[in-house]
Amino acid sequence: MTTNKKEPVDPARLASLAEVAINVGVRLSPGQDLLMTSPVEALPLARKIAGEAYKAGAGVVTTLLDDDELTLARFAHGNDASFDRAAGWLFNGMAEAFDNNCARLAISADNPMLLANADPDKVGRASKAQSIARKPALEKIAGFEINWSIVTYPSLAWAKLVFPGEEDGVAVQKLAEAIFSASRVDLPDPVSAWRSHNEALGRRTKTLNEQRFFALEFVGPDTNLTVGLADGHEWAGGEATANNGITCNPNIPTEEVFTTPHAGRVSGHVASTKPLSYGGTLIRDISVRFKDGRIVEAKSSTGQQVLEKVLDTDEGARRLGEVALVPHGSPISQSGLLFYNTMFDENAASHIALGQCYSKCFANGGSLGREQISAQGGNQSLIHIDWMIGSGEIDVDGLDEAGGRTPVMRAGEWVSLAQ
Amino acid sequence: MTTNKKEPVDPARLASLAEVAINVGVRLSPGQDLLMTSPVEALPLARKIAGEAYKAGAGVVTTLLDDDELTLARFAHGNDASFDRAAGWLFNGMAEAFDNNCARLAISADNPMLLANADPDKVGRASKAQSIARKPALEKIAGFEINWSIVTYPSLAWAKLVFPGEEDGVAVQKLAEAIFSASRVDLPDPVSAWRSHNEALGRRTKTLNEQRFFALEFVGPDTNLTVGLADGHEWAGGEATANNGITCNPNIPTEEVFTTPHAGRVSGHVASTKPLSYGGTLIRDISVRFKDGRIVEAKSSTGQQVLEKVLDTDEGARRLGEVALVPHGSPISQSGLLFYNTMFDENAASHIALGQCYSKCFANGGSLGREQISAQGGNQSLIHIDWMIGSGEIDVDGLDEAGGRTPVMRAGEWVSLAQ
Repeated sequence: MTTNKKEPVDPARLASLAEVAINVGVRLSPGQDLLMTSPVEALPLARKIAGEAYKAGAGVVTTLLDDDELTLARFAHGNDASFDRAAGWLFNGMAEAFDNNCARLAISADNPMLLANADPDKVGRASKAQSIARKPALEKIAGFEINWSIVTYPSLAWAKLVFPGEEDGVAVQKLAEAIFSASRVDLPDPVSAWRSHNEALGRRTKTLNEQRFFALEFVGPDTNLTVGLADGHEWAGGEATANNGITCNPNIPTEEVFTTPHAGRVSGHVASTKPLSYGGTLIRDISVRFKDGRIVEAKSSTGQQVLEKVLDTDEGARRLGEVALVPHGSPISQSGLLFYNTMFDENAASHIALGQCYSKCFANGGSLGREQISAQGGNQSLIHIDWMIGSGEIDVDGLDEAGGRTPVMRAGEWVSLAQ
Repeated sequence: MTTNKKEPVDPARLASLAEVAINVGVRLSPGQDLLMTSPVEALPLARKIAGEAYKAGAGVVTTLLDDDELTLARFAHGNDASFDRAAGWLFNGMAEAFDNNCARLAISADNPMLLANADPDKVGRASKAQSIARKPALEKIAGFEINWSIVTYPSLAWAKLVFPGEEDGVAVQKLAEAIFSASRVDLPDPVSAWRSHNEALGRRTKTLNEQRFFALEFVGPDTNLTVGLADGHEWAGGEATANNGITCNPNIPTEEVFTTPHAGRVSGHVASTKPLSYGGTLIRDISVRFKDGRIVEAKSSTGQQVLEKVLDTDEGARRLGEVALVPHGSPISQSGLLFYNTMFDENAASHIALGQCYSKCFANGGSLGREQISAQGGNQSLIHIDWMIGSGEIDVDGLDEAGGRTPVMRAGEWVSLAQ
């Protein structure tokens, strides 16, 4: 390491992360435009990514920067009606960009506690208004119309939450190291490391696809959940080919394999195994009961009001759009850290997602219309929110339609079937 | 002053500037959305403005932040084709926002020398592509569809150019004081100071409108220019009422009164009296000759290539869209400073603008269509670029159609006619 106290984030590693973001994550094509979103605090990474994008032959790179203080100004001073408004014009513009083959990269560095002291009713309403406004843009991401990716940056507020006992510089340095390790940029050749990793995930999805399970059953402490899988579902993981023909790695890091549940065939109860950080609120100890695919009871020990607002976003917000398997032995899980950031925590544990499904997680998904996807059990919603249900104590079985049972995971680890 | 070395920009004055921006500049209506643009460096002001906007009852405030290093990344690494591209989707989104009555505020703090070392051909092409892309949004600003304003912030690079001999903190503090003074936020009651100033500018435009001049004649060193005025032109200055019914102050500061030249009736030669800072390039000692409204010869001592690219943007880029009168004794002029920023320098000297005219500068301008405006002599272009032609050595006469002559300014000062 060459970091020092003045520079807790190693610039050489950051440059390597920028290369991975463009050449592994987005895999920007020559001439393709790029829309990047980034917190102001992550500018040291955003600037390097912009440089890498232009080196890769970008058309024009447009960076939308957000600032926590600007967000807080609204919750401090906004009048009541403000919280039902959102900048739809901006998301409509993004949708137009995607229609013109613009690629998308997000830098995630959110302070999970940003809105912890804000009025939960206002947080929930602002979140719903935002979800409605961004639908035209999110649909094109969820439908993989273009290549996209998300990478992470060690912001101070996030680092202090992950490493609460450390001084600022040390906390940032430690989170930076965790990000660099999970993103494989601490290896001598990150691009070929990602190639090998994508191949390993590809073998796992191939095995699961050959099984054609009718449902998955999760059993563990406070959890006994049957997740029906959508008709014609397809497992995905690692790299994915967008409808514009470009193969990208949508998440850096990623350890999961995932597919589409059947929106009408989920039953039983399940408890979260890690807190969910959603829009500046921490929702802890989620416990829900499903009946016929729908959440009919939900509680949490913190963030209950925000959770309820989220579930009330629309009909699909109470149903599942994704189920993902991650072994308890994954490197991120083995770090023993709780990251309070879905990009990490979802790669440390098996999880489910409320809301919108990915059309890519269907055989021939790119050619299926919205109605056909619904008919096969794919869920539709304004939201897509992952939360963690895996741990070292969870067993997973694959069920066939007749009730036949195949072990998939035991005590959180793959059984030989899917290794 | 309460500034100190650690805080060269007085936070109390900045708070006052934020109030003036919202309550004098934009005059945001309760429930109205706001689109703000700001350099990252001006976040201390942008955050206060967002707070003021929400206190004034804003719907949602959307802030687009730009960063000089992101701009430079393109000129450092972009391939040739990049420089003909622009993010049209973003400007289309803005146009949609304005169609929905979103107000607009820009914070100007540009480093005038940002692109001084970039390839002028690339700078010119990128500027043209940007102008074409933003046309749908700029038209609604130039046409005063909604209330808008521009305020300034003392960025370090700008301050160092205005005060080249000073240390960083001192330069920023001095530019901050100049901005606060010109923006009237160093007075005990800035809002009523702006009311008085608007009334004074209103009396001047009323006098000029009563004269109904056919043309203005500028005579001074290296300048002998006749600027025909558009048929049905109207003088404006200070506050203006947008087509949405909201009266705003589009520029903070402002000292000018201005109207629309006739695009076909400008003749003679004119020399700039201050450098023009345009898109990161300084264009010094501009000297042009007009024939029948069109620039037929143009040279400058620096930035010649960028000037030529600008003039070649479209047919209207070689014709005038604005003529403005500012007395040499204006407070900004008397500061003796050269600001390298149009927001200041245009309020220190009479000036002309290449390109698009303002429909507001016609009697009943809000109800005139594009064709009618052209028929009356109003110019159309993708650009609108002000440059300074006034000084303490310039005389201005008003001409009637028969050639009758009325003195308007002598040695850069108003004669009694228009005081």
